[in-house]
Amino acid sequence: MSKFTYSFKEGNANMRSLLGGKGANLAEMTNLGIPVPQGFTITTDACRAFFENDAKLPEGLMEETFTRINEIEKETGKSFGSKDNPLLFSVRSGAVFSMPGMMDTILNLGLNDEVVIALSNKTDNPHFAWDSYRRFIQMFSDVAMGIPKYEFDDILDDIKNEENIVNDQELSVDGLKKIVNKYKEVYKKYIKEDFPTDPNRQIELAIKAVFNSWMNPRAKTYRRLHKIDDNLGTAVNIQSMVFGNMGDTSGTGVCFSRSPSNGENKLFGEFLMNAQGEDVVAGIRTPNDISKLKEINEEVYNQFLDTIKSLEKHYKDMQDVEFTIEEGKLYFLQTRNGKRTAKSALNIAVDMVNEGLLTEEEALMKLEPNSLNQLMHYQFDPQALENKTVVAKGLPASPGAASGYVVFTPEEVKAKHNNGIKTVLVREETSPEDIDGMILAEGILTARGGMTSHAAVVARGMGKCCVAGCSDLRVDENKKIIKSQSGLEIKEGDIISIDGSTGAVYLGDIPKIEPQLTGNFGTFMSWADNTRKLNILTNADNPKDAKNAREFGAEGIGLCRTEHMFFNEDRIKNVRKMILADNIEDRKLALSKILPYQKDDFIGIFEAMKGLPVTIRLLDPPLHEFLPVKKSDIESIADDLNISYDKMMDRIEELKEFNPMLGHRGCRLAVSYPEIYRMQTRAIIEAAISVGDTKPQIMIPLIGDLKELKYVKNEIVDEINLVFGELKTSIQYEIGTMIEVPRAALLSDEIATEADFFSFGTNDMTQMTYGFSRDDSGKYISDYIDKGIFKVSPFESLDKDGVGKLIKLSTELGRKGNPNIHIGVCGEAGGDPDSIEFFAEVGLNYVSCSPFRVPIARLAAAQAEIKINNSK
Amino acid sequence: MSKFTYSFKEGNANMRSLLGGKGANLAEMTNLGIPVPQGFTITTDACRAFFENDAKLPEGLMEETFTRINEIEKETGKSFGSKDNPLLFSVRSGAVFSMPGMMDTILNLGLNDEVVIALSNKTDNPHFAWDSYRRFIQMFSDVAMGIPKYEFDDILDDIKNEENIVNDQELSVDGLKKIVNKYKEVYKKYIKEDFPTDPNRQIELAIKAVFNSWMNPRAKTYRRLHKIDDNLGTAVNIQSMVFGNMGDTSGTGVCFSRSPSNGENKLFGEFLMNAQGEDVVAGIRTPNDISKLKEINEEVYNQFLDTIKSLEKHYKDMQDVEFTIEEGKLYFLQTRNGKRTAKSALNIAVDMVNEGLLTEEEALMKLEPNSLNQLMHYQFDPQALENKTVVAKGLPASPGAASGYVVFTPEEVKAKHNNGIKTVLVREETSPEDIDGMILAEGILTARGGMTSHAAVVARGMGKCCVAGCSDLRVDENKKIIKSQSGLEIKEGDIISIDGSTGAVYLGDIPKIEPQLTGNFGTFMSWADNTRKLNILTNADNPKDAKNAREFGAEGIGLCRTEHMFFNEDRIKNVRKMILADNIEDRKLALSKILPYQKDDFIGIFEAMKGLPVTIRLLDPPLHEFLPVKKSDIESIADDLNISYDKMMDRIEELKEFNPMLGHRGCRLAVSYPEIYRMQTRAIIEAAISVGDTKPQIMIPLIGDLKELKYVKNEIVDEINLVFGELKTSIQYEIGTMIEVPRAALLSDEIATEADFFSFGTNDMTQMTYGFSRDDSGKYISDYIDKGIFKVSPFESLDKDGVGKLIKLSTELGRKGNPNIHIGVCGEAGGDPDSIEFFAEVGLNYVSCSPFRVPIARLAAAQAEIKINNSK
Repeated sequence: MSKFTYSFKEGNANMRSLLGGKGANLAEMTNLGIPVPQGFTITTDACRAFFENDAKLPEGLMEETFTRINEIEKETGKSFGSKDNPLLFSVRSGAVFSMPGMMDTILNLGLNDEVVIALSNKTDNPHFAWDSYRRFIQMFSDVAMGIPKYEFDDILDDIKNEENIVNDQELSVDGLKKIVNKYKEVYKKYIKEDFPTDPNRQIELAIKAVFNSWMNPRAKTYRRLHKIDDNLGTAVNIQSMVFGNMGDTSGTGVCFSRSPSNGENKLFGEFLMNAQGEDVVAGIRTPNDISKLKEINEEVYNQFLDTIKSLEKHYKDMQDVEFTIEEGKLYFLQTRNGKRTAKSALNIAVDMVNEGLLTEEEALMKLEPNSLNQLMHYQFDPQALENKTVVAKGLPASPGAASGYVVFTPEEVKAKHNNGIKTVLVREETSPEDIDGMILAEGILTARGGMTSHAAVVARGMGKCCVAGCSDLRVDENKKIIKSQSGLEIKEGDIISIDGSTGAVYLGDIPKIEPQLTGNFGTFMSWADNTRKLNILTNADNPKDAKNAREFGAEGIGLCRTEHMFFNEDRIKNVRKMILADNIEDRKLALSKILPYQKDDFIGIFEAMKGLPVTIRLLDPPLHEFLPVKKSDIESIADDLNISYDKMMDRIEELKEFNPMLGHRGCRLAVSYPEIYRMQTRAIIEAAISVGDTKPQIMIPLIGDLKELKYVKNEIVDEINLVFGELKTSIQYEIGTMIEVPRAALLSDEIATEADFFSFGTNDMTQMTYGFSRDDSGKYISDYIDKGIFKVSPFESLDKDGVGKLIKLSTELGRKGNPNIHIGVCGEAGGDPDSIEFFAEVGLNYVSCSPFRVPIARLAAAQAEIKINNSK
Repeated sequence: MSKFTYSFKEGNANMRSLLGGKGANLAEMTNLGIPVPQGFTITTDACRAFFENDAKLPEGLMEETFTRINEIEKETGKSFGSKDNPLLFSVRSGAVFSMPGMMDTILNLGLNDEVVIALSNKTDNPHFAWDSYRRFIQMFSDVAMGIPKYEFDDILDDIKNEENIVNDQELSVDGLKKIVNKYKEVYKKYIKEDFPTDPNRQIELAIKAVFNSWMNPRAKTYRRLHKIDDNLGTAVNIQSMVFGNMGDTSGTGVCFSRSPSNGENKLFGEFLMNAQGEDVVAGIRTPNDISKLKEINEEVYNQFLDTIKSLEKHYKDMQDVEFTIEEGKLYFLQTRNGKRTAKSALNIAVDMVNEGLLTEEEALMKLEPNSLNQLMHYQFDPQALENKTVVAKGLPASPGAASGYVVFTPEEVKAKHNNGIKTVLVREETSPEDIDGMILAEGILTARGGMTSHAAVVARGMGKCCVAGCSDLRVDENKKIIKSQSGLEIKEGDIISIDGSTGAVYLGDIPKIEPQLTGNFGTFMSWADNTRKLNILTNADNPKDAKNAREFGAEGIGLCRTEHMFFNEDRIKNVRKMILADNIEDRKLALSKILPYQKDDFIGIFEAMKGLPVTIRLLDPPLHEFLPVKKSDIESIADDLNISYDKMMDRIEELKEFNPMLGHRGCRLAVSYPEIYRMQTRAIIEAAISVGDTKPQIMIPLIGDLKELKYVKNEIVDEINLVFGELKTSIQYEIGTMIEVPRAALLSDEIATEADFFSFGTNDMTQMTYGFSRDDSGKYISDYIDKGIFKVSPFESLDKDGVGKLIKLSTELGRKGNPNIHIGVCGEAGGDPDSIEFFAEVGLNYVSCSPFRVPIARLAAAQAEIKINNSK
């Protein structure tokens, strides 16, 4: 027979998966000799058995439970349901991961009309006894049985009005008795049964309620969002009650061992005397700061301080405890690692290393890499947010907080910017033409597009706040108006605020907190750098981003996209001419006019990254992305190229594609028009020579075949040699390839023979490996997540099973084909901690991510290394 | 030192790659004891060395050549350049594969002003000698040195005019001498050197000319078209001359051992007495039928007959020989396997088995599977074609010959068809809405789209003649006019003829030859069926195709697409309502109206395939393909669904995708709207139950993940069980999946655990593995072919290296995950012989192809099996 229950004395902190976090901690504390009210835990196995058994408690569970209760009765001398010396219990859920949405706590279980009298007699405190009873009925009804809370609040208010009092504390015993009776009536109205008087029945119902709460919608949603497996189940903790409301020598409180907001090494907590747990947070009485306890009971305070510090030492982490003092005796009801802000986490980690409590490696494991985001971006002041209503919610595409006037075009952003006015650029979706506006706006809000849409990717690259795919909103760019599904209208010139970390949209301006990269940040990151093996490069397309990234610790550029450079006002016309030319002379002429600009671009970037590698990807997107749309633009180009407007329209029509993602782009352009890559190569090499101390890495996108690579590489090398000849000098360079086409991954042994490096483009690779269009998949991937097929979109976090298998295979084959090759990632996944762990395991040499993710990647890479070493 | 030359006595037929086809055959004949003029072959190694050496003859080659000449001089007693008893040579190219575009033949090499006199004296035939000389100069100048032929023709004509004669034969010796002098002047004019008088110099120049001709543009184009490696190189055959023009006991001719047009076992050839080779084909004198030779010289005739029959026996194939009779002595100059029509090939193969000359397996290897196409489709009468001009050329998308009135819409096809008028449907490109028109038209001509465009795929499926991607033409569907680049205009109502086997477009009607599937066809195919292991299924979407395919030998349906069924007039409105519904009730209502039609579709198909497996693919294409475009259609649907026109337009807009190929399609639709697949499943199962004796195989497209498959399969199984319950019966069925998404291939071990079968969709797989959009890639793949990166589009013939690697991996993993799984192919490659060979090697269970390719696939599968067995 299974063992479904563990006494606190039997368990320990390593048994989380069986006993849940809370149960394991209570057991651990018990075994540490910390005063914990006695109790036991029903295992998560029992919960799984419950769901496998059609929501019936597994056989033997209740028998075991009663045996445990007997044990506690023996030790305490109290008795469950006793009319002399009653034993009461609290019942709490306890999942492996702390999780809101589940059943919280039922206190005082075991009370009934007779036991309450015993309690009253025993404590000589009828107020306490009846107050406990009415609380129990309410909690049981509300928490376990799902009866609406307002029913009980209304009764309480009625009686308080009758008695003409404000505080619950002042209720008369008679009033409490009345309340108890009315509460029972409510129970019967909803449940069609009398309130259960049998304590054994009470505990059985409570256990079922905890189990059922595991599957309530809020809990399920939470698990989906946090990628927690539905199959883990929850444990149930049953613990004998101690009372903080037994008079003035009793009390209760909560406390952090250090500050959860800034990490200061000082107790941070509150308590109330003569109160039960919920009173502390209810806000009716004002709790005391924890320091006040010293005045009230110095002995207890010192015991408390010693215990919390020993817990901190034991758990090697800042603790969040609940405690109760029953008639002068201190009990710890719970301890757990305290939740904290990123700032607090960072400071605590560094302090604990200094205090000798943690090793550097242990400290590195304490921070969720993504939490560093909070340190690097503006945040809305939490207090200011309290009065704000979220009017729409999109995807948290790029973290930060921004407020500004609503505008709909990049031109308008620029105009306002010139007048010193802050703006939020709102678009149905952005396109490369919006870049200038995106740079100058405070933030970007789009109605369409996912976490990897153009707006999202570009904004993250810039560290610009962005809310994308806000499907509540319809953006009418012509009428310059946003309409929400609820009927709200936002017009050009209205002020909005957007939170790129949550996806929330607010009306009006909201005060913000500045990013603070304190001294501890540098210390902490240097530990990460000493630990990690992966190099962290950045994706940067301009000198500003490059400088930013370098400050964030980037060790070079892993992806410099050249296409954005083509949209600049001064050159777009020649870019268009280049595309629309129907002969090589016209194309070369147009390219020759773009060359000086490109060279300047690269000079700026090489200077910003002097001494570090810079990987430049040659032109990648389908040419038609650059096509003119406006009639006047088309006419002007037709004139310049000396062909008719109709012929020009024909050519534009010809360039349209059904599936541009799989179309004429990347190195395919260079096969058709080698002169484009030649111009870019020339610009790169001339710039590198003129800047000096740089080693350009030329990256060819979308390679799928060895012969294709040879052809394109040959053109590039030939051009490089031409430049060397003309300038009578030479420099070091490398030529490598993106690996994004599945075929290239499958044939990496061949391809590696002609490549100095590989760079996985995880976005395109995911698109082709899954057959999911990044631009279109938002619509259906949400169905996949709703139906439990996916936990997360493969564009958000690398699909390790499929795309990962291909990356692993390609890496192995690539190293076989060329033992000196260096291999990395430059797709979105390069900045995702979970994916970085995978890349480290596969043994890649580097990841490249957007500048603002560089510190995150540095930490994630360090953590990955630690995990790898620990698993050895 | 390399050995660059082989005497005919040294070589044999197995040395083709070194000696070329002609050289290997001459050697083989020599060693068979057949009278062949003595000679030797310069190897293809020498040719490769020539090109590696900057087009210089490799060291030692000429020395070896002269040694060989010495040997021949010794054996013949003649001497090269001799003024007494001169030895002359022919020089011919000889590649491994017979190949037009290369240097042909130079005869009489070794002649000069002195040798010609020796020849004249020796033969006592000055006319012959001088005629040989002037022919030599002309051939050498034209063939070896590239001097325009008209220069020589003009001179010849001038002298003939002077002498007032018609036939070359009648020229006076003086006339011939004049011609020789004038020819030499032409030579000097072009080459800036005197005509080379030194026979050694002549032979060196001729060898170089042969080598250089390997790289001439026509030869390169031919190789590209026929996928022949540029590196093979050509051999050079140098053979002592024998003369058919030494008088009335001399002659020359060509002969097939059997009829190349119908295979009849009877000599088929022509000869001329007192003539050299070119006279037979020049058409100036009318050659005699080979039977006439018996009358002229019975001994020679009998020797000829014996020899050609022994050659046939030796080569186990019909022979095409060139022969010369020199003063009553018979020489064979060449033998090779004769080119023949498919009809001839088939009849010869069957006859030779009956004659005991070939085994059945050997016979099966004699036919190029694709050549069966000729037997199954209408062909233009070759004689009628002679007077016809090709006005445009597109891709030979679906074989056959068709003539009819030009129309531009499917409606017009139907209208004309109702009046018994034949039409050719001309479209910019076809879409699924054109199906009805495509069925009724004689042929289809499109201006855009490749070999796997909609028009091409559908036409091949129907066995309908189609020329696709005829980019010479601009089709203006509004003005109902076709314009060609040359300015030609074709209007609605004009008659055109199109040849789907060549891609040619002609004006006017052209007589056609009917397909003939004679008795030998059945015999031959039964041998193929006994040999092959692969099952051959068909792709068929309607009962007519299914019946057709069954007649062609299909063993079931491997792919029945259901989407085409949705376009039918009676149902498209409900299909659209289904798509545009924004709630499940409206969608279910619309689906319930489609259900009876779908059921009828399946009943028809199951009946046509009774007793055989039928694999039905559930809905695959993106829904927006079905969307209404016409305003009236949109309004009517909006009315029916009770929503506004604007809202309907919004919904249509919402459904648009950037990359529909990677969009919301296939099983992704079923994840979002499981009710669609449920309706289809119900239709399939109800139909199967009502027809009986059928085992439906339900195929889920675009699966990429095990959980996704489980989800969709679960819906299908649930619906099947509902139907079983309602009808109180059950039948056998299977549920399998397409493997087309690379991820599914990579994770086939997992996926196979839930699949009864796999079917590779090679088109989609190629799209995703290469990242090539099938609809767009035509534009750039042609650049890849031009630049030698690809030999052939991966959509035409399976990319074995990349996509093939994935198929192999998936097959291995699939069998590991489910040892009972059956695995096949239903993409375009399923009908491509080259790909079929690969599928057989990988060990697939079946291929499925369009009905008209079923016999081709049967033969290809048999050949693959034979090759596999031979290589064991």
